[in-house]
Amino acid sequence: MSAITVSIAGASGYAGGELLRLLLFHPDVRIQQATSERHFGQFVHKVHPNLRGQTTLKFCGMDDLQPCDLLFLCLPHGEAQKRIEHFSQIAPRIIDLSADFRLQNPDAYARWYGQSHLRPDLLGQFVYGIPELHRQQMQTARFISSAGCNATAAILALYPLFKEGLAQANQAIIEVKVGSSEAGNRPNEASHHPVRHGCVRSFKPTRHRHAAEIEQELSFNEAMTAHFSATAIEMVRGVLATAHVFLNRKLSEKDIWKIYRSYYASEPFVRIVKERDGLYRYPEPKLVAGTNFCDVGFELDGSTNRLVVISAIDNLMKGAAGQAVQAFNIMHGLPETRALQFPGLHPV
Amino acid sequence: MSAITVSIAGASGYAGGELLRLLLFHPDVRIQQATSERHFGQFVHKVHPNLRGQTTLKFCGMDDLQPCDLLFLCLPHGEAQKRIEHFSQIAPRIIDLSADFRLQNPDAYARWYGQSHLRPDLLGQFVYGIPELHRQQMQTARFISSAGCNATAAILALYPLFKEGLAQANQAIIEVKVGSSEAGNRPNEASHHPVRHGCVRSFKPTRHRHAAEIEQELSFNEAMTAHFSATAIEMVRGVLATAHVFLNRKLSEKDIWKIYRSYYASEPFVRIVKERDGLYRYPEPKLVAGTNFCDVGFELDGSTNRLVVISAIDNLMKGAAGQAVQAFNIMHGLPETRALQFPGLHPV
Amino acid sequence: MSAITVSIAGASGYAGGELLRLLLFHPDVRIQQATSERHFGQFVHKVHPNLRGQTTLKFCGMDDLQPCDLLFLCLPHGEAQKRIEHFSQIAPRIIDLSADFRLQNPDAYARWYGQSHLRPDLLGQFVYGIPELHRQQMQTARFISSAGCNATAAILALYPLFKEGLAQANQAIIEVKVGSSEAGNRPNEASHHPVRHGCVRSFKPTRHRHAAEIEQELSFNEAMTAHFSATAIEMVRGVLATAHVFLNRKLSEKDIWKIYRSYYASEPFVRIVKERDGLYRYPEPKLVAGTNFCDVGFELDGSTNRLVVISAIDNLMKGAAGQAVQAFNIMHGLPETRALQFPGLHPV
Amino acid sequence: MSAITVSIAGASGYAGGELLRLLLFHPDVRIQQATSERHFGQFVHKVHPNLRGQTTLKFCGMDDLQPCDLLFLCLPHGEAQKRIEHFSQIAPRIIDLSADFRLQNPDAYARWYGQSHLRPDLLGQFVYGIPELHRQQMQTARFISSAGCNATAAILALYPLFKEGLAQANQAIIEVKVGSSEAGNRPNEASHHPVRHGCVRSFKPTRHRHAAEIEQELSFNEAMTAHFSATAIEMVRGVLATAHVFLNRKLSEKDIWKIYRSYYASEPFVRIVKERDGLYRYPEPKLVAGTNFCDVGFELDGSTNRLVVISAIDNLMKGAAGQAVQAFNIMHGLPETRALQFPGLHPV
Repeated sequence: MSAITVSIAGASGYAGGELLRLLLFHPDVRIQQATSERHFGQFVHKVHPNLRGQTTLKFCGMDDLQPCDLLFLCLPHGEAQKRIEHFSQIAPRIIDLSADFRLQNPDAYARWYGQSHLRPDLLGQFVYGIPELHRQQMQTARFISSAGCNATAAILALYPLFKEGLAQANQAIIEVKVGSSEAGNRPNEASHHPVRHGCVRSFKPTRHRHAAEIEQELSFNEAMTAHFSATAIEMVRGVLATAHVFLNRKLSEKDIWKIYRSYYASEPFVRIVKERDGLYRYPEPKLVAGTNFCDVGFELDGSTNRLVVISAIDNLMKGAAGQAVQAFNIMHGLPETRALQFPGLHPV
Repeated sequence: MSAITVSIAGASGYAGGELLRLLLFHPDVRIQQATSERHFGQFVHKVHPNLRGQTTLKFCGMDDLQPCDLLFLCLPHGEAQKRIEHFSQIAPRIIDLSADFRLQNPDAYARWYGQSHLRPDLLGQFVYGIPELHRQQMQTARFISSAGCNATAAILALYPLFKEGLAQANQAIIEVKVGSSEAGNRPNEASHHPVRHGCVRSFKPTRHRHAAEIEQELSFNEAMTAHFSATAIEMVRGVLATAHVFLNRKLSEKDIWKIYRSYYASEPFVRIVKERDGLYRYPEPKLVAGTNFCDVGFELDGSTNRLVVISAIDNLMKGAAGQAVQAFNIMHGLPETRALQFPGLHPV
Repeated sequence: MSAITVSIAGASGYAGGELLRLLLFHPDVRIQQATSERHFGQFVHKVHPNLRGQTTLKFCGMDDLQPCDLLFLCLPHGEAQKRIEHFSQIAPRIIDLSADFRLQNPDAYARWYGQSHLRPDLLGQFVYGIPELHRQQMQTARFISSAGCNATAAILALYPLFKEGLAQANQAIIEVKVGSSEAGNRPNEASHHPVRHGCVRSFKPTRHRHAAEIEQELSFNEAMTAHFSATAIEMVRGVLATAHVFLNRKLSEKDIWKIYRSYYASEPFVRIVKERDGLYRYPEPKLVAGTNFCDVGFELDGSTNRLVVISAIDNLMKGAAGQAVQAFNIMHGLPETRALQFPGLHPV
Repeated sequence: MSAITVSIAGASGYAGGELLRLLLFHPDVRIQQATSERHFGQFVHKVHPNLRGQTTLKFCGMDDLQPCDLLFLCLPHGEAQKRIEHFSQIAPRIIDLSADFRLQNPDAYARWYGQSHLRPDLLGQFVYGIPELHRQQMQTARFISSAGCNATAAILALYPLFKEGLAQANQAIIEVKVGSSEAGNRPNEASHHPVRHGCVRSFKPTRHRHAAEIEQELSFNEAMTAHFSATAIEMVRGVLATAHVFLNRKLSEKDIWKIYRSYYASEPFVRIVKERDGLYRYPEPKLVAGTNFCDVGFELDGSTNRLVVISAIDNLMKGAAGQAVQAFNIMHGLPETRALQFPGLHPV
């Protein structure tokens, strides 16, 4: 089969860079164009130094975009909904990595983003980008909206419990520890190394927008509340989500294990990590850095019926570009793991 | 007044090293002896390199201990209760930094430590070492048991709320992010740099022993449950505690501010940190490294009545040696801040 | 062609782990056995957590080794020379990653390692493992001895200059900054996280053994002296070598560029990195982490004729396992880049 | 004696912040004013969070400066020479922490800074700020120019050797490893955490301006050449200087020890660090973080007569504010260690 032609709008950011890294090694893909207004005309490796010697691609402008089979959008908040008409004329399929089309409900969007959505009519046409929840819709989808990185970690950690109705709906506390790459590639006072280095900063104790995605995806028979907090720690890539839920019936760790197995045993990118001994008993972000894995583990406090579920991802991979490429593979009937097989490094 | 003579049993560990650092500069103190079986006869600066040129003190053996005014105990778990008779003959006053005498209730001790206490008769004689809660008893105390580092951060974060009966007693989730110095100075597989570096490790999702201290100190009219989890992150010194509690009545952030002010305004080592803007809106461990401060801040999620309280300490200072020296000052009627005035560094 | 069967003796260490990671994805290779006395019978992923879900291989004992096409040796210093007879009966080809067979001259070995070599007769049969210098001999080699990580970085930085006789032979100062993985996977006082974290430690100002390899490989018409020093910094993987040499004739940066190009332009794993602007003007270890690249750059101080040559590698890859797999590919007439194409991550 | 009134021009930077931290605890000093155009009117603790609760001082504007006993200048390059007339009317004594008045020779200034000096007439009136070299002149000095941080580390490492004429004058290679705080508090692309984190960046292989200071201070009977290179590593505070010199006569390590002792034994802030065993055999920046110490150690390679001298300082303390306060103490006949006694932390 001839190569699938893809272009990336907004390719100078971190998610765009990861897409370039992955797609350059994807045997079924030809990268046609990568846009950047800021770095127009430069070799992509000037911005993404790990691609030095891997490609001679240069950044083009947004207006230079030619028709292609699929367009990845890695644009600042609001741009996708503004230009979606134009983009959908360029490509029959679109994967948007921004937050613009994640929430199905326009009211929720307005409430969480403080402005009304420009294209509420299209919200229903975007499939929320977590394959483990929406694989089937993806196979025929035209539009996919990749999930937020923190939301991805939280949702995959809790999906089996809420789908099965095992957790109390309004007592889930979710804390994420995140790296500095989540804040993007633009320097600012908070990202200045002497300031950001070694910090353990509660940057969003409440009202983090990803809570809206979690609540959307984990509300089944009853609406769940995601009590969400985010802390920035000394790390560049990675998210560790620690979710504290209270079970609404008595379960053993073995019961819980079976439930998670039934959901994830056949998933290529979700690993249940729960060892009795050794150094690596639970998920750790650094072990999935550069990979598309989401590792999930848990521990039950029998005396209080609190279940602590821990998940780890690379925010730029399973939390962004890797998730998008996995969705891309599904959309095109390709093996899901294609171009996503890097196992990660140890030690690191 | 003539110097107060003190000795430190178990001075080669991290807490012992901090005590040496603080007491060497304490104008009212003369350090008489510092014991270490492992480093017997060596200069203390061989083990604590920051003391190079500050003292010619050498480690002696436990059996060499001479009578002194006050004895600090920094011994492995279980040693203090085993030798307390002997130690109390050496010194009229004792400050124990181990966990041996933190829990007043022998049953709680047996339940959390998996063995019955050797001297349940003495538990009642030890004052729990957080000055902000037990200053008055300290003034006349003979024995003080310093609090656990994580417990100190959690208790100071939540004390005003539980004392005032404002938080639901069985829904408090407390997550601490901790540095590697908490695990002590003995190398092991888990502390090996290539393994420990950059890790975000959920090492104790449930059943952390410090929960017992928190429940003891925060249970007033009704018993509270501390749903406690600990995550090891890339840091050497420091604890950030993030406590999620649900208020049992409607309060504004201003109301909560007033309550915290009423408890902590006159405390020399508790700072309420809550800024509307700037980079340092909430407590951060690195800003209190080397200091005896416990910074406390909070954010209210009005829509769910969840209050997130954040506190930061240096586990070796306010969480151990600094707290002990503060108690020491109180016991001797000295200004509480003596030898504890280092403000911390920035940037760091 | 049927798979090449390989086994790894000493597979629980960091170099062994990298070999496993690389060879598991090598299309022409079947990993037959991996030995570890310490972890006998355990799944390899218990020791190398990045391989979780990638293989069901378990560690076997040294005596269980079966005949195979090629044997990789990752054993402690001295073991290879002790058992070489036995190993050469197991496999027709051997790649030794230890230091045992790196020095061709038994006297040099005795001088640098403080003991006489057990098999001086074999030293001549081992090809020194840097493909850029010894590719041709490798094609027909039976035995290859992988180069030391620091030596690899230094040699590739300076090879063109000394081969061309352009640098003063006894004034080369080479400083390497190294990560903690160089010291192996056994915990010790120096590798304890609170001690090793953030350290900038001059651990080997003089007499580092890798100097012997550098002098062996860079002495052509006249003997060169490697004035070598090593500093441990806050890093797990990676080496940055900074070599200061004095040119023995007047050259421009352009002349030097041409010389390096003439040596490395066609090398798949050596990149000349020298940009006029941007953030990545010179080699950086983190950009080659997990890759087999050696990036080389330089800057000339025209006023003093000092040339500073900078090179960066991943000590476990181009400095160990990657270099060995590259040699393996050459020995078997395979494309050199096979199983070595990971481009590295950014940001990281 | 009544307090010495001091003001700080340019107090929002890192050096200014350290001056504030030190002077707030200096018993003989009253801080009168601290200027910042950018943060005019704000509390100093908004910019220097470690001063929270330590002072209610607010930043004023440059034009608000009132007469005081001594003025510290922490202004951007060029500002001091431009306004020196005005400043010298405000205060009878000035300590300038910028590079403006470090070089005595206007030609050297023009050569290294690419522009001619505005006040060559004053260069001779500024005492170069390293007390160990210029203590006597400081006692009566009106103007002091603090030394560059890297220059300070290099000069103190090599001073005894060059003063005694023991090192070859044109073969000294000096490599510094530096932290991110050296680049100041303004965010930029290079200081962005995901970029700067974990980097080992050769940012100035040649032509670093501090070389000019080193050559000025270490040239005695003959002009010495400082072959200087700087590498940025994962660290916020600190400099490790590794100096490689070739002795011009045969000396033993004991001889060298005696020479260093003769220069530094009575220095309050220079420690000779050279241990036969233990973890801390040589200087390490993290052990002097927050202190005014310069630790100096060395190792001799007898076979080549290369002496490697290693020194460590905190660039913001002995390399800037601490050095300035030490000079301040000398100028006023105060004990040199006043307000500079913090011993540093361990572990850290």
